[in-house]
Amino acid sequence: MKINGTPYRTIWLAADGKTVEIIDQTRLPHDFVVLQLRSLNDAATAIKDMWVRGAPLIGATAAYGMALATLGDVTDAGLQAAYAKLHATRPTAINLKWALDEMMATLKPLPGPARIQAAYARAAAICDEDVAMNAALGEHGAAIIAEIHRVKNQPVNVLTHCNAGWLATVDWGTALAPVYKAFDAGIPIHVWVDETRPRNQGASLTARELNWHGVPHTVIADNTGGHLMQHGMVDLCIVGTDRTTRSGDVCNKIGTYLKALAAADNDVPFFVGLPSPTIDWTIADGVREIPIEERSAREQSHIFGKGPDGAVVEVQVIPDGSEAVNYAFDVTPARLISGLITERGVCAASYEGLKAMFPDRA
Amino acid sequence: MKINGTPYRTIWLAADGKTVEIIDQTRLPHDFVVLQLRSLNDAATAIKDMWVRGAPLIGATAAYGMALATLGDVTDAGLQAAYAKLHATRPTAINLKWALDEMMATLKPLPGPARIQAAYARAAAICDEDVAMNAALGEHGAAIIAEIHRVKNQPVNVLTHCNAGWLATVDWGTALAPVYKAFDAGIPIHVWVDETRPRNQGASLTARELNWHGVPHTVIADNTGGHLMQHGMVDLCIVGTDRTTRSGDVCNKIGTYLKALAAADNDVPFFVGLPSPTIDWTIADGVREIPIEERSAREQSHIFGKGPDGAVVEVQVIPDGSEAVNYAFDVTPARLISGLITERGVCAASYEGLKAMFPDRA
Repeated sequence: MKINGTPYRTIWLAADGKTVEIIDQTRLPHDFVVLQLRSLNDAATAIKDMWVRGAPLIGATAAYGMALATLGDVTDAGLQAAYAKLHATRPTAINLKWALDEMMATLKPLPGPARIQAAYARAAAICDEDVAMNAALGEHGAAIIAEIHRVKNQPVNVLTHCNAGWLATVDWGTALAPVYKAFDAGIPIHVWVDETRPRNQGASLTARELNWHGVPHTVIADNTGGHLMQHGMVDLCIVGTDRTTRSGDVCNKIGTYLKALAAADNDVPFFVGLPSPTIDWTIADGVREIPIEERSAREQSHIFGKGPDGAVVEVQVIPDGSEAVNYAFDVTPARLISGLITERGVCAASYEGLKAMFPDRA
Repeated sequence: MKINGTPYRTIWLAADGKTVEIIDQTRLPHDFVVLQLRSLNDAATAIKDMWVRGAPLIGATAAYGMALATLGDVTDAGLQAAYAKLHATRPTAINLKWALDEMMATLKPLPGPARIQAAYARAAAICDEDVAMNAALGEHGAAIIAEIHRVKNQPVNVLTHCNAGWLATVDWGTALAPVYKAFDAGIPIHVWVDETRPRNQGASLTARELNWHGVPHTVIADNTGGHLMQHGMVDLCIVGTDRTTRSGDVCNKIGTYLKALAAADNDVPFFVGLPSPTIDWTIADGVREIPIEERSAREQSHIFGKGPDGAVVEVQVIPDGSEAVNYAFDVTPARLISGLITERGVCAASYEGLKAMFPDRA
């Protein structure tokens, strides 16, 4: 997507063909800073400290992390250590393991010296596959938006939660790919951006990228969606997913479930942008089986923002002596989801729906 | 309630018998500052700029605002001007109009010179009535908590949204009165405190007063309640109300509706602490008939907090160039509410329920 007119991906190779470059997403929305990853450790830190985030981009970064690891150690033991280190960075994102397994399957059969070039090639291919997948998903989702616009003949209001935009992927995004495809096709569209406490990925990242690309949008408190839906101000919701069960339950940023309840209560279509690598075919009951990551309470008790002097500062928003807790995800049951927008098309949020779309994997 | 062991109300007369004193709630949770109101203008500013907030405390402050107005002008015209000025400060809170009407009914029949003393006496009585009403409401609500504790024999987890605690009233609170009554009676209790973006009244005020009084509590993002309810971590919800229709629809802080949906979806009882002056008998359909106050977008785009040097600072949390919007309230339909906890007892959220409880007013 574009930053003030210039096309960017979220991860790319530097001119030396070895160094990996990313946008430091912890500095967004106020500063645009490109970071160089030169080692396995750099890549692991980038994922763990959320310089990059979003399931697909985490997978792409992990893939390049394996490539960076081969620069230092091309042995089986080296690959295994790199796999273990990268796998330990974030427990919830299924893409992480998927990308690492892809890399291992590519590299394991090769003799040591051949692994460096093959690793870079496979990591680049994983990135290109993500872009192609999201572009296809975006086309399928844009058709839904176009149909709403055809019937309504007014700008289409989309509500989204967290950031499942191009900053969360290599390009296009998942939840936002349909928005960008529709916008680029000239369909008038406006996005309600959930702030997404506690880490504010909506206010920081979704607003940032929509703003860069020129898509009309309004940031709202996470509390607001229900009111908007009660008053006909939302035509559809599209969210992302970190992990989807084979039965269509969706694990996504905390608060997604509340918006899905409001959508169901007001007959607002609720869609999930779902690249197929985020499907976990081994799990059926999302609420019972998916472990929910608990992150630092400081993300809840404190907020980063741009202070009066323009510098980014962290402020405390709870009284001294009070406790806070920070559950990062929740699970939206399949019964609340109107459809899953995949790279192959839109299907029902059910085992039957997913199986019909992915008979080769179910 | 107590601040570190010392009993306080939220509004009281200074030693001179004329000046009204309040806690500057915009300075909470980090600073405890008492302000003096010496004129009608001071009282109007206190309400408009949210030095005081919460429907009952707004009503009490408006009543004292009328008393302060009589110090300068005891004529009918003076009363009428004071009424109009105070009435214009906040459109949604029904207590405001109720308190002003009470004051007018008391003062209008009296000769000018008698109005000053009568105004102070009626304002003090309105405060005492609020305290008595909330204490009674608290006893009725505490019985629900006690019953849950009797069955569960474990600490009772209450989720609340926004601040309907003693800081929102003259004393005890509405949603939190049952919590304080149960806590003071020795029932083990823990409160999940919704942060309540965009103004953070949960993180700032509810956490502050629970912390002062010694009630165990944990601050959570507004997105979190659904997840907690899915996992059996909430025994009941109790929220306040700014305005309740005769059919039992509840207008309360934005996001209340989303929690009520989650409670209904998980069979968690959802109660509203409802002092009867907040009932608007003239309105039936809350979603269609209650105008929702839209406040400054800056409350959404910026957040106040305590910075690294201990001073309170305002930080910007959205990118330059993005828009934000700030709807302050939403309406929770009666069908999602388990019961209304009033000063006379607990009733169904319906016209029949309210009429049976308040046959003298329905």
